[in-house]
Amino acid sequence: MKVKAEKLTGFIEQIFIHAGANKENAKIIADALVLAELRGIPSHGVIRIKDYLMLVRHGRMVLNPQMTIVTETPSTALVDGGNGPGMVVGKFAMELAMKKAKEVGSGWIAVRNSNHFGIAAYYTLMAAERDMIGFAMTNGNPLVAPTFGLDRLLGTNPIAMSIPSASEGTFTADFATTPIPRGKFEIMEKTGQRAPWGVLQDAEGNITDDPSVLRRGGAILPLGGDYEHAGYKGYCLAAMVDILSAVVSGANFGPYVPPQVAYLPLRTDLPGLGLGHFFGAIKLDAFRPACEIKDYMDQWMKTFRNSRAVNGKQVLVPGDPEVIKQEINAKEGITILPEVWNELMETLREWGIESLALKI
Amino acid sequence: MKVKAEKLTGFIEQIFIHAGANKENAKIIADALVLAELRGIPSHGVIRIKDYLMLVRHGRMVLNPQMTIVTETPSTALVDGGNGPGMVVGKFAMELAMKKAKEVGSGWIAVRNSNHFGIAAYYTLMAAERDMIGFAMTNGNPLVAPTFGLDRLLGTNPIAMSIPSASEGTFTADFATTPIPRGKFEIMEKTGQRAPWGVLQDAEGNITDDPSVLRRGGAILPLGGDYEHAGYKGYCLAAMVDILSAVVSGANFGPYVPPQVAYLPLRTDLPGLGLGHFFGAIKLDAFRPACEIKDYMDQWMKTFRNSRAVNGKQVLVPGDPEVIKQEINAKEGITILPEVWNELMETLREWGIESLALKI
Repeated sequence: MKVKAEKLTGFIEQIFIHAGANKENAKIIADALVLAELRGIPSHGVIRIKDYLMLVRHGRMVLNPQMTIVTETPSTALVDGGNGPGMVVGKFAMELAMKKAKEVGSGWIAVRNSNHFGIAAYYTLMAAERDMIGFAMTNGNPLVAPTFGLDRLLGTNPIAMSIPSASEGTFTADFATTPIPRGKFEIMEKTGQRAPWGVLQDAEGNITDDPSVLRRGGAILPLGGDYEHAGYKGYCLAAMVDILSAVVSGANFGPYVPPQVAYLPLRTDLPGLGLGHFFGAIKLDAFRPACEIKDYMDQWMKTFRNSRAVNGKQVLVPGDPEVIKQEINAKEGITILPEVWNELMETLREWGIESLALKI
Repeated sequence: MKVKAEKLTGFIEQIFIHAGANKENAKIIADALVLAELRGIPSHGVIRIKDYLMLVRHGRMVLNPQMTIVTETPSTALVDGGNGPGMVVGKFAMELAMKKAKEVGSGWIAVRNSNHFGIAAYYTLMAAERDMIGFAMTNGNPLVAPTFGLDRLLGTNPIAMSIPSASEGTFTADFATTPIPRGKFEIMEKTGQRAPWGVLQDAEGNITDDPSVLRRGGAILPLGGDYEHAGYKGYCLAAMVDILSAVVSGANFGPYVPPQVAYLPLRTDLPGLGLGHFFGAIKLDAFRPACEIKDYMDQWMKTFRNSRAVNGKQVLVPGDPEVIKQEINAKEGITILPEVWNELMETLREWGIESLALKI
């Protein structure tokens, strides 16, 4: 089915209000999920609603959290998210980062006691809109083995950066630090496809193209793949994200990151608080007049877009594919797969709020 | 031949003093080059001396630059390196970043009009020694094609981060955003080896394992490799480094980065000033008491080091291989290959300072 973004946003908002969220928080969650759908990343959209609701029902996430600024300097802060939804906590932290950037040039916020925060670009785009460079990253459930390792010690730990240009749009790099996200391996397994060579290992650490190993002690390799292809650099990057998000803030790191689905149990030996994020904002004016940097950014983007490409292809600027999808989906509506919709309806029935769907 | 680090440092210092550097700058260059040798990265060590001297002789680099702080906020600054050696400029910028971090929690310095800055860890380790998290990155000569592209638009653009622990040593991720550095492909070609599959493309954009394509219009692929293996994420990362280093500062970006060897001509259509870097420092205390973060970092490092590994291997923490080499080389001396030494002697003869080598 296809739904217009505004309608979908209102629908999701109502769901979370019925689940106990205040209007403001419900709107933030809905905005972030719909932005993911608009930008063509449905793995971080509607499909997450049931997981979030289950976490709430099991007392593992709080919809109206008490968020606190634990410590603060002019350009940094540590935020405790009060075990709130990642996007509620993340928006609070990103706004604090931008406030500090406005005041002293840059703002850097470490966050603990949070949960899944949706797409990282949701936060970095806020900064770009205000003529700032935005940074966002988060740790996540362990799925990735470090180079030469057998244990899953790192999440897909995405990192994002946005910077505006004068007239060529916004540059947004937003990527997981693994070659392929977990969800795609599930689809490969269901449809009988093999994975590309060099991105998965089995329980003994042998490279394999069998996506089912993830259910049998296997692991995803970090960006780069095996040692020969410099997967240790992807490991470095994922480790940087984990350390900035969790070690700095006091959240749970690597193997201890709490699962963001209620059907997986919580470990009882947690060394930290919830999941961790790290946000940054630097105002362009802190270095050169914003217009100068944005004009130069135009030149950068044109150079890349106008460069020679392999036959039938085109060189894109990071963020271009998502912007193209966003334009199409904003016009034509967001496609929701029947299985995702049916699963959501089931959840709404459990909560006794299936009538909300009638307005869609 | 093998040389003790202190002796090698004094020798390099003398070379640059004879070439016109003041004592302080000569020492900085020598320290950075010897640190690279100690840490087992000879591509950024002694082999660079002849290139630096040639750049100086051709008026393309200044040994005693006029460095200026162009603009400044409490937590940021733009530095013009006066076309100085990257390590002289970089140390100046990193010290400014740390000063700001001490004052307002964090410091972020964009640098233009600089040159090759050696290993990025030289700067991030300075921060770690002061209980700060250090960040350093630089753009470099174009060797890398963006995903689907045929033109070399990006350098190997390294990025580094260091963070100290209480008793487990310093975490240092320092890696180029390509799977394999240029130098290794040259060695492969000379020794008749093939490159790993998926890290090189020929002039038409076909994946190849022939390292000679780099002399014939080919390009290195970004970290990850081809599209299927998510090389576009490596492209994102290299682009982030290029933008932070050059677009923000007003240095030359991507394809315009000036070559760091004098035998390659300078383009005449340069849009910016020299090469660009980006540095950052955040004091641990800006978030939590430094001892708390360092204790937690111990736990992080132990968790990774003690995790299960594939047969005969070990899970390492980023920076471990370099620390192990540094300990061995500090004790046993630094090995300099005969061809590197002979080339250096030739350069010293050209400068009329071959007698300096007698003291080694």
